[in-house]
Amino acid sequence: MSQIKVGVIGCGYWGPNLLRNFVEISTSNVLAVADVREERLSHIKNCYPQITITDDYRELFTMGLDAVVVATPPATHFLLAQDCLRHGLHVLVEKPLTLNSQHAEELIKLAEAQELILMVGHTFEYNPAVQALKEIITSGELGQIYYVDSARVNLGLFQRDLNVLWDLAPHDISILHYILDSHPISVSAHGTACIVSRKHDLAYLNLVFPDSILAHVHVSWLDPRKSRCITVVGSKKMVVYDDIEPLEKIKIYDKGVEALPYTDTYGDFQCSYRYGDVVIPNIRFVEPLRLECQHFLECIMNGAEPQSSGQVGLNVVKVLEMAERSLHNGGGQEKIFFEKEPEFSHVVT
Amino acid sequence: MSQIKVGVIGCGYWGPNLLRNFVEISTSNVLAVADVREERLSHIKNCYPQITITDDYRELFTMGLDAVVVATPPATHFLLAQDCLRHGLHVLVEKPLTLNSQHAEELIKLAEAQELILMVGHTFEYNPAVQALKEIITSGELGQIYYVDSARVNLGLFQRDLNVLWDLAPHDISILHYILDSHPISVSAHGTACIVSRKHDLAYLNLVFPDSILAHVHVSWLDPRKSRCITVVGSKKMVVYDDIEPLEKIKIYDKGVEALPYTDTYGDFQCSYRYGDVVIPNIRFVEPLRLECQHFLECIMNGAEPQSSGQVGLNVVKVLEMAERSLHNGGGQEKIFFEKEPEFSHVVT
Amino acid sequence: MSQIKVGVIGCGYWGPNLLRNFVEISTSNVLAVADVREERLSHIKNCYPQITITDDYRELFTMGLDAVVVATPPATHFLLAQDCLRHGLHVLVEKPLTLNSQHAEELIKLAEAQELILMVGHTFEYNPAVQALKEIITSGELGQIYYVDSARVNLGLFQRDLNVLWDLAPHDISILHYILDSHPISVSAHGTACIVSRKHDLAYLNLVFPDSILAHVHVSWLDPRKSRCITVVGSKKMVVYDDIEPLEKIKIYDKGVEALPYTDTYGDFQCSYRYGDVVIPNIRFVEPLRLECQHFLECIMNGAEPQSSGQVGLNVVKVLEMAERSLHNGGGQEKIFFEKEPEFSHVVT
Amino acid sequence: MSQIKVGVIGCGYWGPNLLRNFVEISTSNVLAVADVREERLSHIKNCYPQITITDDYRELFTMGLDAVVVATPPATHFLLAQDCLRHGLHVLVEKPLTLNSQHAEELIKLAEAQELILMVGHTFEYNPAVQALKEIITSGELGQIYYVDSARVNLGLFQRDLNVLWDLAPHDISILHYILDSHPISVSAHGTACIVSRKHDLAYLNLVFPDSILAHVHVSWLDPRKSRCITVVGSKKMVVYDDIEPLEKIKIYDKGVEALPYTDTYGDFQCSYRYGDVVIPNIRFVEPLRLECQHFLECIMNGAEPQSSGQVGLNVVKVLEMAERSLHNGGGQEKIFFEKEPEFSHVVT
Repeated sequence: MSQIKVGVIGCGYWGPNLLRNFVEISTSNVLAVADVREERLSHIKNCYPQITITDDYRELFTMGLDAVVVATPPATHFLLAQDCLRHGLHVLVEKPLTLNSQHAEELIKLAEAQELILMVGHTFEYNPAVQALKEIITSGELGQIYYVDSARVNLGLFQRDLNVLWDLAPHDISILHYILDSHPISVSAHGTACIVSRKHDLAYLNLVFPDSILAHVHVSWLDPRKSRCITVVGSKKMVVYDDIEPLEKIKIYDKGVEALPYTDTYGDFQCSYRYGDVVIPNIRFVEPLRLECQHFLECIMNGAEPQSSGQVGLNVVKVLEMAERSLHNGGGQEKIFFEKEPEFSHVVT
Repeated sequence: MSQIKVGVIGCGYWGPNLLRNFVEISTSNVLAVADVREERLSHIKNCYPQITITDDYRELFTMGLDAVVVATPPATHFLLAQDCLRHGLHVLVEKPLTLNSQHAEELIKLAEAQELILMVGHTFEYNPAVQALKEIITSGELGQIYYVDSARVNLGLFQRDLNVLWDLAPHDISILHYILDSHPISVSAHGTACIVSRKHDLAYLNLVFPDSILAHVHVSWLDPRKSRCITVVGSKKMVVYDDIEPLEKIKIYDKGVEALPYTDTYGDFQCSYRYGDVVIPNIRFVEPLRLECQHFLECIMNGAEPQSSGQVGLNVVKVLEMAERSLHNGGGQEKIFFEKEPEFSHVVT
Repeated sequence: MSQIKVGVIGCGYWGPNLLRNFVEISTSNVLAVADVREERLSHIKNCYPQITITDDYRELFTMGLDAVVVATPPATHFLLAQDCLRHGLHVLVEKPLTLNSQHAEELIKLAEAQELILMVGHTFEYNPAVQALKEIITSGELGQIYYVDSARVNLGLFQRDLNVLWDLAPHDISILHYILDSHPISVSAHGTACIVSRKHDLAYLNLVFPDSILAHVHVSWLDPRKSRCITVVGSKKMVVYDDIEPLEKIKIYDKGVEALPYTDTYGDFQCSYRYGDVVIPNIRFVEPLRLECQHFLECIMNGAEPQSSGQVGLNVVKVLEMAERSLHNGGGQEKIFFEKEPEFSHVVT
Repeated sequence: MSQIKVGVIGCGYWGPNLLRNFVEISTSNVLAVADVREERLSHIKNCYPQITITDDYRELFTMGLDAVVVATPPATHFLLAQDCLRHGLHVLVEKPLTLNSQHAEELIKLAEAQELILMVGHTFEYNPAVQALKEIITSGELGQIYYVDSARVNLGLFQRDLNVLWDLAPHDISILHYILDSHPISVSAHGTACIVSRKHDLAYLNLVFPDSILAHVHVSWLDPRKSRCITVVGSKKMVVYDDIEPLEKIKIYDKGVEALPYTDTYGDFQCSYRYGDVVIPNIRFVEPLRLECQHFLECIMNGAEPQSSGQVGLNVVKVLEMAERSLHNGGGQEKIFFEKEPEFSHVVT
């Protein structure tokens, strides 16, 4: 396989970034772009005259493509991905994979049956700063993990067919699953719908992970400041990952507290504090989307399971479903059940 | 009454700041300081040789004082304030007023019966930036208030007899009551006790105020960065009050979103965004504690009810009690009942 | 003229950005790219298969082009621009226009004689934040301008054929000329060559403008932090333009000092300080390079003189020449002579 | 000597801080305060009733004091310090020591003759962050020092009897002398007097130290933002010391550039860049003024030479004199001559 032939469905907000990457990567060749909006197509044609444009995505099935990227509104993910898989194409779907777990499971089964790659665009799993964060946690440098706090807020674009939970929280949940290498046992969610009735634009999630690790997620489309910040607090050290910082994304604080044996005498409570240096590791910047696209192409070539596989996408959808349920029942705690993840058995040849 | 004669009980972490203010204010005269720690008393004596020191606070009842400041650990607030009121002294108690609402109610009744001033040290109600924030909200400049988000975190000193909820959240709750001029209908709380078993060092509160205003409070003793930040989001404008900023504490963002009439056509969701100027109002800095101390002295002189009266202190304790209950029952929603606030009837003469 | 046919010479660091813009703008069509590096050409070919690539820029003269963009190392600007103008092509040259004023004057005369557009890529003159800064100054809102301080530093790429003065200071000088609408009377420069002998990587410039306005420019390739910050201090207000800030690039400070009549009595010196609000005007972001490219195309279509004309480029080169002279004579003050700028007489038809 | 008996002359802006420290330190006892302003004295009397106040500093000579602190306007430093030394008192003078080097030399000789301590209040030499910076430089961790850039600007209080050079630059110059352990060979200065005729409120200094180390100092009373920032660039690493940062005052950047052997081939210039981690060392905060006051008392007790001795104060005055001369001759370079520093010979007994 010399160059992987790629088609792109959806060229609105995020699609052009995917398109540009697959154009620039030398191992792929973008043959066609589909979108329902005429002006988007003509813009693409102006920049890339060699690419075929169409307002009917089904034309892509006749062009000898190897793979398709689905970057359309989430409500259309399931049907489009299903159709592409049925036509024998590897599929990279934008997050969230689907809007319910049953649909995600169907796609996984279909890809398995067809021996095709199904990958979801959890970009942050390919972000070098997130990968560095995962390594720091895994290395044990932080000690026992106590809690994770994540905020992802700004004056954001309202989505037509989903609320802020489904729009922004997939990032936080996929990052949490990835860096903690586990899934939450339960979730509760609070929030409010300020602008459009019954469409939440603000949500707070409390997730309980194994070993009593608490994770809190704050997502909002209605905040005056942009924040993309994750704090991980461990028994030995603490880390802040601030994605807004252009260079200093990860800060490791050699700070901690230890309780000393409790005494009943009247006096200061006995805790031992440690204030040490702060280290900002140098992280070589590579565009995460470039790494994601390259990973998709490599999985196709090698028949390997993607990092952000369909199963990984399903696990995020399960958490979102239960968070949504809690959001609508007054913040009650909802349990989440994850099946044992199946082995990735097929190899594309 | 030429100078108001003041005694201070407790000279640990916060007491010296109160002491210094009452020393520097020309309308008060600090006659005595009580503390159980010898080294604190000798330090005070070195700096202020004119002040009587004692390790028995009851000596203060024999010195002809007008008022006493109670800056001891919260568990001792009730008994000390009660004893001072019974001995005919006006009392300024550090926050939280007491550790349960029954105690707070008893103090209020006692002060009323004795015709004495009972004031709680809600410092932020005397902070010029918080007062500016309240004025901005009251003026209607922000439009309808949608939600308030408050964070108060750092690597903080563990308290001997209370958790992070009772240590830090009194500030947030008193600010919320003050700026919104109302009290929450219900509260739910999540959190975890990382360092000392059953003593929460991290808590998230969700408060529902009248008119469906959601307030979220994040307090932590276990965070690598110091944050003291309150965001108020309204239908017209948004405000961020960042108390860490030395000069630019209040930022007013002329930003907002309005939903346009919904249409069913396939196309971009219709919202109207407004991105306007940011204004940072000049706020003349005065030490809030100085204003608080002066207010206490003025209330004594004029027989006026303090801004942060015993009743205001009780209202904060009620919210803390219900938040604590939720924290221990898995984040369930707890209703809070506030009685109609009594008129302030007595005038000190 | 339906689409302006453009060629690009030089596709290293900055050239691809110019290329991308001319590709995306619908009124231009990029037909060819020339570069001496094979790997750059093959990358361009991979992304834009419709574009002809060549390692000999003279091939561009045979393709019926209207205009050429020169984005090569500065030492080659003069000969390449001259050759393109002689072949009847409009030229956009990257900054600095040339490495000496005589070369710049020759290019200006040649363009005039050929009735062609000669434009220099002073990108910041097309930056909406710089344009907003100019408007604020011109409106008189700041009062009388006292001084301007500009810093442009980071760990920067060393250039092969020029020092930091010629690499970075063209931006500051073109901005100063543009926002003050005048040229400096004299310049002195200090600096040092740390890494490569006789190639300055740090320089400080003091420029005296008419009306005793002092401008100071700090440029460095050897600074651990990235800074792109200009402060303009006036008698009424002060402005900071921080290009690193993603959103809040311009801050207007309603601050100032006024001297009160001097008295000889012993007492505090009499100055009146004003501390007012800070305003951050909302500036709609458009990529400056996009605006620059569009301006070049519009000047070609309308036969209009560009904002950053050859003459404007020459004026920057004159200041750089004198600053360089001062740098090598120990920081002595060098006078700069500007001729009256000629009218832009020709119209392209 | 049980407690050192201290008097304070001048209780305006800075004097109260010195007073408070000497009051709180247990090895000193403040007996008297002199000031010409009645309202300052009555404020002091209100806070510290045990201290004698007077509007005639000569009364301090009759009270059996050991030492005097001179915190009056700089124009009065010489006569007051001289009078105190003549009356056998150890003297701590605020910076700058005097307004010309002859006066400073006279004070040094007088103190030597009288066997008294003469110390100047170069507070930053007692700042733990500056001490950490000096240790980093001395350790060789930065490699060869290339240059130092220092900025000290804000909307500052105009001084009655001196310009911004004499008001702010003593800090930068004393820090440079201290951290580089050497003195400049020459200085040139540019600046302007915006508000009050002939009183510079903005100045830029270029200082050449041995080993071709360039230091640049930017001081201004007319800047909208407060900055107190020193950058030290070395061949191996770079350091930024930002005194405005509450906690992260020192940042060590493992960044650098090395020139590779130059080749004449057309291609990228050969430099080797190193981008490594950033380390923020934990610096235990102690109020620098407290350390300065303690050091003064210890020198008195031990007869030791102070870190910021009269000679150290004189060296700063010499640089200021030459910078002032350059400021008034158009930025010309002025050489500075330092005599070999005399040994500190006397021991107070």
